[in-house]
Amino acid sequence: MTFETKATIANFGGKLLKLSHQSSETKTPMALNLYLPPNASASTKVPVLFYLSGLTCTGDNCSEKGFLQAHASQHGIAIVYPDTSPRGTETIKISDRDAWDFGTGAGFYIDATTEGFKENYRMYSYVTKELPEALWGAFPQLDSTRVSITGHSMGGHGALTLALKNPGMYKSCSAFAPISNPVNCPWGQNAFTGYFGEENKEKWAEHDATELVKKLKEGDKFAALIDVGTGDNFYKQGQLLPENLETAAKESKADVKVEVRYQPDYDHSYYFISSFGKDHIEYHAKFLKQ
Amino acid sequence: MTFETKATIANFGGKLLKLSHQSSETKTPMALNLYLPPNASASTKVPVLFYLSGLTCTGDNCSEKGFLQAHASQHGIAIVYPDTSPRGTETIKISDRDAWDFGTGAGFYIDATTEGFKENYRMYSYVTKELPEALWGAFPQLDSTRVSITGHSMGGHGALTLALKNPGMYKSCSAFAPISNPVNCPWGQNAFTGYFGEENKEKWAEHDATELVKKLKEGDKFAALIDVGTGDNFYKQGQLLPENLETAAKESKADVKVEVRYQPDYDHSYYFISSFGKDHIEYHAKFLKQ
Repeated sequence: MTFETKATIANFGGKLLKLSHQSSETKTPMALNLYLPPNASASTKVPVLFYLSGLTCTGDNCSEKGFLQAHASQHGIAIVYPDTSPRGTETIKISDRDAWDFGTGAGFYIDATTEGFKENYRMYSYVTKELPEALWGAFPQLDSTRVSITGHSMGGHGALTLALKNPGMYKSCSAFAPISNPVNCPWGQNAFTGYFGEENKEKWAEHDATELVKKLKEGDKFAALIDVGTGDNFYKQGQLLPENLETAAKESKADVKVEVRYQPDYDHSYYFISSFGKDHIEYHAKFLKQ
Repeated sequence: MTFETKATIANFGGKLLKLSHQSSETKTPMALNLYLPPNASASTKVPVLFYLSGLTCTGDNCSEKGFLQAHASQHGIAIVYPDTSPRGTETIKISDRDAWDFGTGAGFYIDATTEGFKENYRMYSYVTKELPEALWGAFPQLDSTRVSITGHSMGGHGALTLALKNPGMYKSCSAFAPISNPVNCPWGQNAFTGYFGEENKEKWAEHDATELVKKLKEGDKFAALIDVGTGDNFYKQGQLLPENLETAAKESKADVKVEVRYQPDYDHSYYFISSFGKDHIEYHAKFLKQ
């Protein structure tokens, strides 16, 4: 699996690489950004943070507006910014349900089971298996044994569910304004109906952070740092439901540490992400540098 | 002069205000952004940094991508992000020469003298007089006695020329990849021909940082911190010409301290600005906190 480097951009002493490769999971070309901090080299492998973006975004939005690279540069952490869905809908049988919150730009980090989506909408397998394996093969500067994950909104849902479904895969997990209980919010219900079918509620629960925490058993462990802005309209509209995740964490018999910080007045935008990116990079650095 | 607040956005502990007001200079509504750091209050007035944007930009680009608020928050400095030209071309007699580097989004921080532009293209008077006076009147949190200026590309030209033309108005001046000698580069020659006329070379020189430094006399003082990326295509194409400004500074009998730092591989984008924003805010803080 080889990557084409579309651009190499100097940033905070390191390099942001705009990459593209052919994905066998989505059966489409997939674009992504990779930030390599100044100290990254084959002899000095650096830990890796995956950042999963939200609805409508590509890997570019947070690369340009999140300022995570400023702090990743200081801590010697690489950041991977994948895309949020397959692109090139002319090659994809998009249903007439395609919208800003479903289909292109809205992959929800699941492997779809429904006709029209199951062939290409395989972002779960792409982000957890195909992409990391391709990166480890192509970039000897990356330490495949020290990997963490974060994300925003739909990408926060992705970060939480991927970490919960794959114990040990990620050293740490955090999220900005995550969709925390998709089976109980309009965004999630609409997406899961389209990707899994209305009846397939078991599959829905497999990709819901709150439902996954409820299934944790005594002896299981999970921890996450979460920030949510109290001025976030999507939070106010009940799309995020972090309280449901907090309740599940409190009631769990497992060792669950979910810290949700409600940030006064902050909205859902990159002005919010950039304001707390330093805290999240420092949180992950504690685990990635062990 | 009253401002309409279109949005108030929490950012780095402070607030980014999206403002609009009617300008008597441009005879159009003018949008701008104002960042107020956390400590700003009527009883704790904060110093003010004007950031002038480059070609095609509005006040939003650097507010979202420049990362300056992160450092302004720490140093207790407000930032004003004006627009780059009058907008609403249906009310403006734009000539058929209107283009991405001339006319809308390309005001060049001058007062135009040519027909079709002289009525509205008065960004020099707007940025140096009308806008600051309006801000001092509307925002008691701002300290009108401690003001500095910076900018990018065309806005770097603006920062340098406004500071050179108005000794004492700004405590300090810096620029990112500034158009340093517009009378000798295609962008400047095209813009000054359109705004001043081909013959009016005296007016051209009045708005050229290199020409203004040449005119400084013994006893005059000027200082600026400038960063330029060596991977910047506009630098390579001879649109910026910082070497001409350095030469004029070296040959001047006045007390001129122009430090141009050539940053290896950096381009012309906000990835470049965000990487060195901390240095620029710290540079201005030294003067603004005196």
